[in-house]
Amino acid sequence: MLRYASRIHTVRHVVTTSVKRQIASRPSVYKTVSLTSVNATRLYATTNTKTVPLTVERYPGFTRNEQFKKLTDKDIEHFKTIVGDNGLIYNNEDDLVAFNTDWMNKYRGQSQLVLKPKTTQQVADILKYCNEQSIAVVPQGGNTGLVGGSIPIFDEVVLSLQSMNNIRSFDDVSGILTADAGCILEGLDNWLGEKGYMMPLDLGAKGSCHIGGNLATNAGGLRLLRYGSLHGTVLGLEVVLPDGSILDSMSTLRKDNTGYDLKQLFIGSEGTIGVITGVSILTPRRPKAVNVALLGLNSYEDVQKAFKQSRSELSEILSAFEYWDNNALQIYKRHSDAKPVMENEYPFYVLIETSGSNKEHDDEKLTNYLETMMEEEVAQDGVVAQDETQIKNIWSVREGFTEALGKEAAVYKYDISMPVPKINECVEDMRQHLKDGGVLGQPDSPIIDVVGYGHVGDGNLHLNIAANRIDKRVPELIEPYLFEWVAKQNGSISAEHGLGVAKNQFLSYSKSDGMIKMMKTMKNLLDPKGILNPYKYLPSQ
Amino acid sequence: MLRYASRIHTVRHVVTTSVKRQIASRPSVYKTVSLTSVNATRLYATTNTKTVPLTVERYPGFTRNEQFKKLTDKDIEHFKTIVGDNGLIYNNEDDLVAFNTDWMNKYRGQSQLVLKPKTTQQVADILKYCNEQSIAVVPQGGNTGLVGGSIPIFDEVVLSLQSMNNIRSFDDVSGILTADAGCILEGLDNWLGEKGYMMPLDLGAKGSCHIGGNLATNAGGLRLLRYGSLHGTVLGLEVVLPDGSILDSMSTLRKDNTGYDLKQLFIGSEGTIGVITGVSILTPRRPKAVNVALLGLNSYEDVQKAFKQSRSELSEILSAFEYWDNNALQIYKRHSDAKPVMENEYPFYVLIETSGSNKEHDDEKLTNYLETMMEEEVAQDGVVAQDETQIKNIWSVREGFTEALGKEAAVYKYDISMPVPKINECVEDMRQHLKDGGVLGQPDSPIIDVVGYGHVGDGNLHLNIAANRIDKRVPELIEPYLFEWVAKQNGSISAEHGLGVAKNQFLSYSKSDGMIKMMKTMKNLLDPKGILNPYKYLPSQ
Repeated sequence: MLRYASRIHTVRHVVTTSVKRQIASRPSVYKTVSLTSVNATRLYATTNTKTVPLTVERYPGFTRNEQFKKLTDKDIEHFKTIVGDNGLIYNNEDDLVAFNTDWMNKYRGQSQLVLKPKTTQQVADILKYCNEQSIAVVPQGGNTGLVGGSIPIFDEVVLSLQSMNNIRSFDDVSGILTADAGCILEGLDNWLGEKGYMMPLDLGAKGSCHIGGNLATNAGGLRLLRYGSLHGTVLGLEVVLPDGSILDSMSTLRKDNTGYDLKQLFIGSEGTIGVITGVSILTPRRPKAVNVALLGLNSYEDVQKAFKQSRSELSEILSAFEYWDNNALQIYKRHSDAKPVMENEYPFYVLIETSGSNKEHDDEKLTNYLETMMEEEVAQDGVVAQDETQIKNIWSVREGFTEALGKEAAVYKYDISMPVPKINECVEDMRQHLKDGGVLGQPDSPIIDVVGYGHVGDGNLHLNIAANRIDKRVPELIEPYLFEWVAKQNGSISAEHGLGVAKNQFLSYSKSDGMIKMMKTMKNLLDPKGILNPYKYLPSQ
Repeated sequence: MLRYASRIHTVRHVVTTSVKRQIASRPSVYKTVSLTSVNATRLYATTNTKTVPLTVERYPGFTRNEQFKKLTDKDIEHFKTIVGDNGLIYNNEDDLVAFNTDWMNKYRGQSQLVLKPKTTQQVADILKYCNEQSIAVVPQGGNTGLVGGSIPIFDEVVLSLQSMNNIRSFDDVSGILTADAGCILEGLDNWLGEKGYMMPLDLGAKGSCHIGGNLATNAGGLRLLRYGSLHGTVLGLEVVLPDGSILDSMSTLRKDNTGYDLKQLFIGSEGTIGVITGVSILTPRRPKAVNVALLGLNSYEDVQKAFKQSRSELSEILSAFEYWDNNALQIYKRHSDAKPVMENEYPFYVLIETSGSNKEHDDEKLTNYLETMMEEEVAQDGVVAQDETQIKNIWSVREGFTEALGKEAAVYKYDISMPVPKINECVEDMRQHLKDGGVLGQPDSPIIDVVGYGHVGDGNLHLNIAANRIDKRVPELIEPYLFEWVAKQNGSISAEHGLGVAKNQFLSYSKSDGMIKMMKTMKNLLDPKGILNPYKYLPSQ
């Protein structure tokens, strides 16, 4: 890698290999998995997911809504008339388990029926019947969520969109794609790649997640800094409402000012007010050049200076600005044999990615930026990847934290957002709070460390608290303290992972009573019987 | 200007002066104004706006809803306790006229009371009282709309946001601005300019329009191609609901996945379900370099080729891609003394603007792009502005069409959107349709010409039909024919101007019955008494 030592004023022209960064798909089996805020019990996933405890056993407090009908043979026969004999899975534990269990093996439901419609009309027929019969339904995409939103709690019917996976149209002048909700994100991205375009979002789970699920959870991911949120890039949706009516707003227009933009309600609604069956989305051109650099910095103030300057100098080619603290790096090093990217260590690190249409121009902009950062002593050290392998090496540090933290005995994970200047304050405050609480800083403390990393550019902090054992004082110290702290900054307790069953009871820390009341009004308006994805999303009280 | 002649393979490095294009603010007085689809009567605006006919006289069919209370002295006294003696205008025709009349002098209402609250709480107190008393209210921003949305029809109270015009905060790390709804767009843009940022939207009316009005009408404008729609850039809103409750979602977060994104409902709702009082918006860095080029092309197919290639080669620096046909240019030439930008004439023209962070890089990208276009004979001729004056000259053609068309005896104007490939087909189809209808093509025909121009990049066509006299056959031939044609292409009958009173009765051409039903449900849910902006937006039947 090309190294930028402090105060070196002349930097030779950096020759990089332009590559599309490879992002690992969802691993099939996890040996250890992360804990969330819901429960501090340590989880061991195994290949036999039948041994995963039921959600209702692990997280007490759920009561089946007895307004929901229990399935009868007559119901099954009716569903067969809609989706055919091969369009459903019924009473077959071996086949049902994948739909009843999440990929982290944290949640397990008790559904006896999975329906796999092939058309929007079939989805409509299913929901019409379920609504009339008061049968509860859980819409499910690629089942890659982190908050249990796509897993039944009791015997809800699983409505899987996996058989609706056709691309409907693509306009290669405007870059507007329409597709079924069950299309896998990576499949769409590869298909577009051949036409010189790409999807405006990218996630670690792209090999499994569905575009419909991405929309239902308002997925953020790695391209948000550059291409914005789905609320801006989605041009149209086709949604089946709980009563079976089809809401068709499959617009392929960038501009349409005719009435309330109702489709926006379904983006991030986690399947609680309608089932997304089709999407129209604006796709950007695939960049011809990608560069990655890593900086070592002395303070979080310098991280902010580097970010601000990158918006000015890298501006239109900036595609990622990620940070981590040295504490995160130390956890990573405990579990990784990889050679360090930088010789020395610094309190903070910044990963910068540029994506543009002209490699030479991008190289020059990045070089100038790095020179400025070194000359002004904002950065203490800097390296630029020279080829695809080096690009992967730098990204693998950023992407290796989750796995490394998972190898500790326990880890409390939070996905929060707040104003950029507050991010490191949050990490330090939590560290001090846990020290004050007597669970960190002593030789026999249960907490190993509090570490921070995340998408600085999006104000999105992944706060992780690693522990060497379960200690019931720890979760009591963290919650609701952290949520209160985040609320004070007008931050969000769930930046990109959503609510599901993991966060719904904490919604009031991010939303006012008026907002929650209006959300409940919307839910009651659109789904008066509450058949869609019950027990989740909104607080039960 | 630097000229690109066909088949010239070597192009010297283009030296341009980087300037911020100056956009004219709304003129204070129009001698002639455009007609819209609502009525074919020719309008003469004068400086004495009291002579403008009342909307209810010009457009028959409105009936005052007698559920709405007529103001009493007691009401006025109550409003004085909220906004003070100086916070209202009552029974003063001279002062009321500016609030009762739109800038085109097409609409005139009969309000006797304007309220000018200074705080969100005052807005809340006003709406609470009006809701209790069933007093109808028209929220009003800068009053620069094109569809009569901000003008009362009968005696509705005008709620002007002009006294709420403070910037609340700016985070110069993330570029997130929060401000009162009554801030003028240009004021915000200038304020941000001093900090190296800018507003993500820009309009001709920027010198008068309010940011709150921009959001309420989901304004598109000149920067949409590059920075996307307000649904993506707006991060938070403060809205007062019709019952006086304050819905606070003034988030300054790029990522927040906690519940339905309710703020989206108010973007483009034209003041019918709530009054926007505050906004949080993500602002981009101000570009350091701006270039403008003009191409002459032989066909609309070539326009599309040029657009597609610009997305590939100019990619991240492309900030505008506008087109017009030669028919539009001919109308312009009838009324302009300006020296033609190009020596020869071509069937189509394309204006390309780039905005970037590095002038040399942008120049090189544009030069390469233009070379490709000339070599491949996509463009027949091309010029690049060399200085600020030349940039203005090129833009002045594109921006001069409205004024030139306004100098004809009558003009029927449509702001529609559709898939990019259909734009010119729409113009040609209308031309043929009017010929077939016997109103175009003969020496004594009432129609002078059908011309097309607009934001190709956004699929947004400004279709204009110029006439030498009023002929009642013309509007009957145009409507609903055009709306049906647009509907067949899944287009929009109002791309960026909104519905107001000009388009609300035609909504079904762009939205399905299901969508309109759900819109009405939303309106009834949020404004059960219908006090906010009555008689507009949604069809009355």
